[in-house]
Amino acid sequence: MNAPTLASVSIIGTGLIGQAWAVVFARAGCITTLWDGNAQAAQQAVTLIEQQMQTLAQYGLVDDVPGAMARIRVADSLEAAVADTGYVQENLPEVLDIKLDIFARLDAAAPPEAILASSTSGIPASAFTEKLAGRARCLVAHPVNPPSLIPVVELCGAPWTSEQTLGRARAIMDAVKQKPVTVLQEIDGFILNRLQGALLREAFRLVEQGYVSVEDLDTTVSDGLGLRWSFMGPFETIDLNAPQGIRDYAQRYGPLYQELAKTQVDTRPWSGELIDNVTTARRADLPETELAARRAWRDQRLMALAAHKQHASDNHNDTDMQDTH
Amino acid sequence: MNAPTLASVSIIGTGLIGQAWAVVFARAGCITTLWDGNAQAAQQAVTLIEQQMQTLAQYGLVDDVPGAMARIRVADSLEAAVADTGYVQENLPEVLDIKLDIFARLDAAAPPEAILASSTSGIPASAFTEKLAGRARCLVAHPVNPPSLIPVVELCGAPWTSEQTLGRARAIMDAVKQKPVTVLQEIDGFILNRLQGALLREAFRLVEQGYVSVEDLDTTVSDGLGLRWSFMGPFETIDLNAPQGIRDYAQRYGPLYQELAKTQVDTRPWSGELIDNVTTARRADLPETELAARRAWRDQRLMALAAHKQHASDNHNDTDMQDTH
Repeated sequence: MNAPTLASVSIIGTGLIGQAWAVVFARAGCITTLWDGNAQAAQQAVTLIEQQMQTLAQYGLVDDVPGAMARIRVADSLEAAVADTGYVQENLPEVLDIKLDIFARLDAAAPPEAILASSTSGIPASAFTEKLAGRARCLVAHPVNPPSLIPVVELCGAPWTSEQTLGRARAIMDAVKQKPVTVLQEIDGFILNRLQGALLREAFRLVEQGYVSVEDLDTTVSDGLGLRWSFMGPFETIDLNAPQGIRDYAQRYGPLYQELAKTQVDTRPWSGELIDNVTTARRADLPETELAARRAWRDQRLMALAAHKQHASDNHNDTDMQDTH
Repeated sequence: MNAPTLASVSIIGTGLIGQAWAVVFARAGCITTLWDGNAQAAQQAVTLIEQQMQTLAQYGLVDDVPGAMARIRVADSLEAAVADTGYVQENLPEVLDIKLDIFARLDAAAPPEAILASSTSGIPASAFTEKLAGRARCLVAHPVNPPSLIPVVELCGAPWTSEQTLGRARAIMDAVKQKPVTVLQEIDGFILNRLQGALLREAFRLVEQGYVSVEDLDTTVSDGLGLRWSFMGPFETIDLNAPQGIRDYAQRYGPLYQELAKTQVDTRPWSGELIDNVTTARRADLPETELAARRAWRDQRLMALAAHKQHASDNHNDTDMQDTH
């Protein structure tokens, strides 16, 4: 990636996702220019970004808050926000007409070499970039909320997105310490939500059919299945779980999983009764009034986990052990 | 749980799983008696258990190795091993005739109030306990390997297993710091492997159909989906991901997941070509000669994660932050 690409980025839309993207880019050293249709919202976003950075700094996840904040600007117009940009990250509402309009404006205003990326989780790039002169430089860069804590970013182009755009977007994400994955063809739900959906469907089914409680199903993941998956993917996990690796695993356990799969093909909607039961179980553990506090707890745990992972991958032989001392 | 139940446990079969169970019980304060059909194997197991405890102690996961080792005994016969026991954990090969034989011997030899549990992942308790006088005290207590690092234990009785047995087994697992989940009816794969299978099937399908590389799919989990799941289950995760909780989430995203599910119903075996391609990708990242070293790395990461989680849940407001200092 060439240096100018990273030097300057633009954040279009400064809600929660836009704020978190601003943290990601500014802490990595980019001049980060914000724009929001509501000028007051953009100003408020700067305050909220600084608060987030202060919290992250307590976990060692931002090194220099004043330095990072000094790289954040607010532009008076969309055109000014992207005049000198190398990379645009758009975060407006999930409405097709809004995406069509904003991408036409971005394509007209941004330098021709700039990449134009949308955070959309539900609208493919092909639906809002087809008619653009610069459609080859457009793609979806789908984060998990918030990208400042969860590094994976799904990159998915339209059929006309250039290989160069995808390659440069991937290099930019690497450079700002995110973890890019490339979705090679457009598909609903990209990769992450398809995997989550497959597991959730089985989870709801096991509860519906009376095999396990909501609470125990969660424990099965949080104290079992989810531990290895927090630092290795599912393929690496099974590769290490048979003496000769993944081929050996597939030979040993493939037939079992195939039998299980035959009972995992139900596509009915989750019933009202099922949702009632799962809701009752969750609210018994966590009253609705405590959802917000629990989200704050979740984010603290994610920050502590991010710090732990950084620590563990920097030097797992020597340093991890000191975690506990 | 009454004190005598915890005072003395028996480990039948001292391979890798039996050794890890011995670590779990002995570090929690139980007198832990080992028996193996091969007397030499049982003696070797004691040495291997001590090595595991030394390693765990470096991560703060065993407090007092000499104290824990002083609680481990080796019995000369199965009958001697269970003469005074409160809880038996059986870990012999996954062969029905072996389970039938050993459970008949255990039921004859163990005190009538002792619980008899099998570590089997593939044979339901109903298949090897039906004819026993003490069948009401028998169940499966299925660990994830190794239970000394991964705390979840799936408890699954036969139709004739008593509620009291299930309740006492659960209390024992709590007391030795494992995380019990109760499987309410016998089902192939219990809960954990059914959830893993559902996600693996979608993972293999996405690679087969050319949507993503093996490496990027793993990143999607290890740097995205798996992070929250290492300390919250899938239900709690979605409960926090919509403003009004899980009912709100189901209303917003249920229709999307239902559409995705319609494309997730393929039950064909993983093809030879698919397994070839996934194997080639994995071996490019990790040669077969390095599998063993990578397993050691995985166990180090699991130990560091266990220490981190203990730390984070003890006092997440004050202590987590010090992780990074």
